[in-house]
Amino acid sequence: MDQTVPKTAKTGAPAREARDALQLRSEQHVEMRTYRDANNVNFQRMCVDGEELSGGSEKDLRNAAKSLIKALELRKEYMGRIGTHFPATTLNFVNGKYPDELRKLREKSKRSVETMYPLETPEPWGGELPNYERTYHLRRGHGIVEVTDGFQIVPELQPYYVAREEFLEDYKWLNEISANGPLKTFCFKRLSFLKEHFSLHVLLNEKLENDEQRAVSHRDFYNVRKVDTHIHAASAMNHKHLLRFIKKKMRTDANEVVMKEKSGEKVTMEELFGKMGIRPYDLSVDMLDVKADKDTFHRFDRFNTKYNPIGRNELREIFIKTDNYVNGQYFAQLMKEVFADLEESKYQQMEPRISIYGRSMGEWVKLARWAVTNNVCSQNVSWVIQVPRLFDLYRAKQDLKTFDQFLDNIFTPLFEVTNDPNSHPELHRFLKHVSAFDSVDDESKTEDVAFSNDMPEPDEYKTEKNPPYSYYLFYMYANLTALNAFRTIRKLNTFALKPHCGEAGSLNHLSTSFLTSESIAHGLMLRKVPVLHYLFYLAQIGIAMSPVSNNNLFLQYSRNPLPDYFKQGMNVSLSTDDPLQFHDTKEPLMEEYSIACQMWNLSPCDKCELARNSVVQSGFEERLKLHWLGPNYKEEGVLGNDPSCTNVPDIRISYRHETLVNELINLYKARMLPK
Amino acid sequence: MDQTVPKTAKTGAPAREARDALQLRSEQHVEMRTYRDANNVNFQRMCVDGEELSGGSEKDLRNAAKSLIKALELRKEYMGRIGTHFPATTLNFVNGKYPDELRKLREKSKRSVETMYPLETPEPWGGELPNYERTYHLRRGHGIVEVTDGFQIVPELQPYYVAREEFLEDYKWLNEISANGPLKTFCFKRLSFLKEHFSLHVLLNEKLENDEQRAVSHRDFYNVRKVDTHIHAASAMNHKHLLRFIKKKMRTDANEVVMKEKSGEKVTMEELFGKMGIRPYDLSVDMLDVKADKDTFHRFDRFNTKYNPIGRNELREIFIKTDNYVNGQYFAQLMKEVFADLEESKYQQMEPRISIYGRSMGEWVKLARWAVTNNVCSQNVSWVIQVPRLFDLYRAKQDLKTFDQFLDNIFTPLFEVTNDPNSHPELHRFLKHVSAFDSVDDESKTEDVAFSNDMPEPDEYKTEKNPPYSYYLFYMYANLTALNAFRTIRKLNTFALKPHCGEAGSLNHLSTSFLTSESIAHGLMLRKVPVLHYLFYLAQIGIAMSPVSNNNLFLQYSRNPLPDYFKQGMNVSLSTDDPLQFHDTKEPLMEEYSIACQMWNLSPCDKCELARNSVVQSGFEERLKLHWLGPNYKEEGVLGNDPSCTNVPDIRISYRHETLVNELINLYKARMLPK
Repeated sequence: MDQTVPKTAKTGAPAREARDALQLRSEQHVEMRTYRDANNVNFQRMCVDGEELSGGSEKDLRNAAKSLIKALELRKEYMGRIGTHFPATTLNFVNGKYPDELRKLREKSKRSVETMYPLETPEPWGGELPNYERTYHLRRGHGIVEVTDGFQIVPELQPYYVAREEFLEDYKWLNEISANGPLKTFCFKRLSFLKEHFSLHVLLNEKLENDEQRAVSHRDFYNVRKVDTHIHAASAMNHKHLLRFIKKKMRTDANEVVMKEKSGEKVTMEELFGKMGIRPYDLSVDMLDVKADKDTFHRFDRFNTKYNPIGRNELREIFIKTDNYVNGQYFAQLMKEVFADLEESKYQQMEPRISIYGRSMGEWVKLARWAVTNNVCSQNVSWVIQVPRLFDLYRAKQDLKTFDQFLDNIFTPLFEVTNDPNSHPELHRFLKHVSAFDSVDDESKTEDVAFSNDMPEPDEYKTEKNPPYSYYLFYMYANLTALNAFRTIRKLNTFALKPHCGEAGSLNHLSTSFLTSESIAHGLMLRKVPVLHYLFYLAQIGIAMSPVSNNNLFLQYSRNPLPDYFKQGMNVSLSTDDPLQFHDTKEPLMEEYSIACQMWNLSPCDKCELARNSVVQSGFEERLKLHWLGPNYKEEGVLGNDPSCTNVPDIRISYRHETLVNELINLYKARMLPK
Repeated sequence: MDQTVPKTAKTGAPAREARDALQLRSEQHVEMRTYRDANNVNFQRMCVDGEELSGGSEKDLRNAAKSLIKALELRKEYMGRIGTHFPATTLNFVNGKYPDELRKLREKSKRSVETMYPLETPEPWGGELPNYERTYHLRRGHGIVEVTDGFQIVPELQPYYVAREEFLEDYKWLNEISANGPLKTFCFKRLSFLKEHFSLHVLLNEKLENDEQRAVSHRDFYNVRKVDTHIHAASAMNHKHLLRFIKKKMRTDANEVVMKEKSGEKVTMEELFGKMGIRPYDLSVDMLDVKADKDTFHRFDRFNTKYNPIGRNELREIFIKTDNYVNGQYFAQLMKEVFADLEESKYQQMEPRISIYGRSMGEWVKLARWAVTNNVCSQNVSWVIQVPRLFDLYRAKQDLKTFDQFLDNIFTPLFEVTNDPNSHPELHRFLKHVSAFDSVDDESKTEDVAFSNDMPEPDEYKTEKNPPYSYYLFYMYANLTALNAFRTIRKLNTFALKPHCGEAGSLNHLSTSFLTSESIAHGLMLRKVPVLHYLFYLAQIGIAMSPVSNNNLFLQYSRNPLPDYFKQGMNVSLSTDDPLQFHDTKEPLMEEYSIACQMWNLSPCDKCELARNSVVQSGFEERLKLHWLGPNYKEEGVLGNDPSCTNVPDIRISYRHETLVNELINLYKARMLPK
């Protein structure tokens, strides 16, 4: 892949520069031919010879490299601030360590299975609450909670408050380069190259990879860890499960009061179903009618009503909500049944997403109390908080006066409990199990205005129009950045931002998430923005994809970009999104893998790589990741791979690593091309 | 759909005939517009108006109708002889009852759920053996077992001995019309019409169908019966299941002798795995390596070796064979675990196929003893016997001298036990659980010679070349015809012929099965023979399709004809073929449905129709079918449908029935067109 400098200096550079270019070229030749991830991993590698790199002029090439590198530097800065993982290889390039210090020979040491980290099971809700000597003053400013000493923001936190002007400048620049013609061409060609290159790799090395997998004792796809990286808690059970649960409750809890009418009248379970004219025996999944069907394709509005069993909002309220007349006990029982199934399967984990709406200040405490009281937790589960973008709705109903109030409801309790855990003890305990925040709504809705400096500040945002995606995301990012810095001082766990992004709608959702988010869910639209697509590759940003869900809502299975993304080496994982609406069997995640497998002829090696990606992307605690991926999992390339845990062949990991390194070398060399 | 007579008499018929044609046309108009399956099923029907029927000349049309009707008459005769189901509607046309006696108004009576047939569980292996007063002499003639009184074939059985000359004549004629240009065009157009017509039907009636389904109390896709109509017993468990079983046995039966070397040395389980260098802990599904992968596509040879766990024939021998050193007890245990899973799911049944090779005379008795001794049976299971077409192999190894010996080994024991159950008591009992015979092998192998009168009779067939598909099938048909007639006299259950057919290979496999087989497995090649394709539709011949299997062996999922067949109203069902090689989850049949559902956007109504088809096609006892499909299930159209059992809306059944009736009316009217 040493194809950096065009043979003839088309720009008419003087002789000396042409000589330098040649010199540079021949150095690269040597470097590229000898670079190997690890010296003891042998497979059939391809060496691309010749001079051209994707056929642009030198100027275009240099500019492309400069823009892409600047974008990576930006992301590094933004991720550094929010305290989010940045992949080691790319980071070493951005930090200027590579390519110079790239080791040419690395030996992979063999590790015996016995050295695996022991797994203690800690007390799920933690022990005593910490008592901090110092507490701070909290105040609101520019839509963010400011942690002050009474007068000004605490100095050690100051760097973590990001100005929206800065974000807007970077965001604007990123949108500009995404639309730059020569850069688009460059990125598109590199992505095409990556895809075809992988196909050749598989043709040449398929058997070697299979043999390597077979040689791994005990481990196979069934007992490698796989995380369902994107699943909504309210639809985490499949429709048959929900049906069975409702039927059971109709029998056992017939005389329980389950709701209160607006008139104040109490209604028992029996009365409720009596009014609907339904006996337990009659109920079927057809009647339940929560499954997505032909009518939901491109109809997200219809899809949302599918959350109502038998089309009745009351049933949704009673069975799959946390805050209702029965204190969410039915939903808690349902979730615990789902968790029990996971624990039984042992190797399946999930990151269920549960809502905080920002409609009132008490939501957090209620949610935390629900979780702690009902003990809704599991070793196989890490919670994600999803914030629906429904400001316009609450504003129209007069629940909220400004967007600042919305942010206040969502973030202030978190700062308070970080400042003093005793302020909301249950929330403090619950947050231990939360790893990330999600922003969620129908992305295909039109956005009337773009986020710019002309937009009002949150406390001035009073219209009933919904702010655009980037406005929501920026303020979530800004609050989380400050919150995480604060929590880091307190030695508490921090939160990543993992929004729904690129499922549909405007392409600038993707530039927003490039700056703000650790990983995203869906990312279908990336295929239409080659520059961001390539940047997502270079920065190895996680994408939790749900092709079965897409197939029912936004994009036919046969047109899903997942197989292309995977070939290109994007960091993609498989997830179910909404088993309640989409899946038929008792094992939705396995069903998702199985369908993908048949559709795209995935090999066992491909499946294990997808599973490994899902664990890497997930927000589970470090001690668990060490146990699941191996003790060196943060090392680059093959040195970080432990086939006895992941069942991914070293060959595959080497291939991925070498390919990424080569792309980055190309860029960093191209930047130095003579003008 | 009243489009029978071209407007202008293109053939220049005299005025009187043109008048008659007009008269005929207007009668049809009335008839077609008023014909409804049942008077109380309302939905949006389409009335096709105008004169043309698929645009051919009157002569072509008349000839097409004549050929198709003759083919249907032939099938009726062949099926009548072997004692196989022929669908009532088509039969009424063939018998001349319709269209004249077609009732224009039918009222569907409502039946309450309570009248369901009670299900007694009979003693699985039957009580005392019957003692027949009269026994017959058996002798071989023309490859068939002849039941004689010592001199000649018993008179009441005489009509059931079919001469191969007769078959060859019909077979040849059928191949000729399959290649007839105008007829091909005609059938192709009708099939296209059927497909598009269905799409319109769904667009117009989808909501009505859904509403009808939702109104059915208690019943949904999960609790309608579905039969896995095509599954090989040796691969009925998925690979994870087999792995778990082998691991368990390695622990519990380490010191059991499991095989004998050729040297006579006895080998224990522990020694066997010791030789392979495998500890129980090490084993993984990757190592087991029974899953089909990219290398098996179009490589049936490779696929067959996938039956060998860890590539070792010994393990196949020990774990998934009935006749081995451990008397097949491991395989029996495995099968019983599979059956237990089915019984737990309650609504899933299967028809596992198990081999009789025809290599030696003792096979039947061994197989029956294995089944009866180990009690390998279940209410959810009906056995099918598969006969691999491996004569050439056994002949080459000198196990067999003639093809007649092959047939002798397969069929003579069946005649003997029918003649006198006491001759092989266990076989008599086992056969109660057998419903059909299958012929199985790689159809894509080239066939050197075609079946003709020039081919030697079975007792003269001594070469090492394999006879063609049609030769095998004819002799299986001929023997089963006589055997079924004999068993009918004895009041014993009879057997259908349900071969693998049209998975690949020559198109004349399909004409063979049209004459000989009740239903077929696969039928992919039908899409290339419009005449047979249309005939399969008219005769509603069952097709057990396995798209996941095809996807791994012969045809990509996206190109599978199943969705087209389904739209056309072919009698198709879904089956798994080989869960061991293809499926990932604990519920292979549900996985198969789920994948089909996502791929082709099947509605709950479509799924229930497929499930209903699978039960209709299956060979389960009448009392079970009555229980599963409703007491009138043999009635035509909507009168035979019981949504409280099948969850298929009456609208769908009406649509299918009316469409079929219209096609048949068209044909029978077209036959009477003036010359």
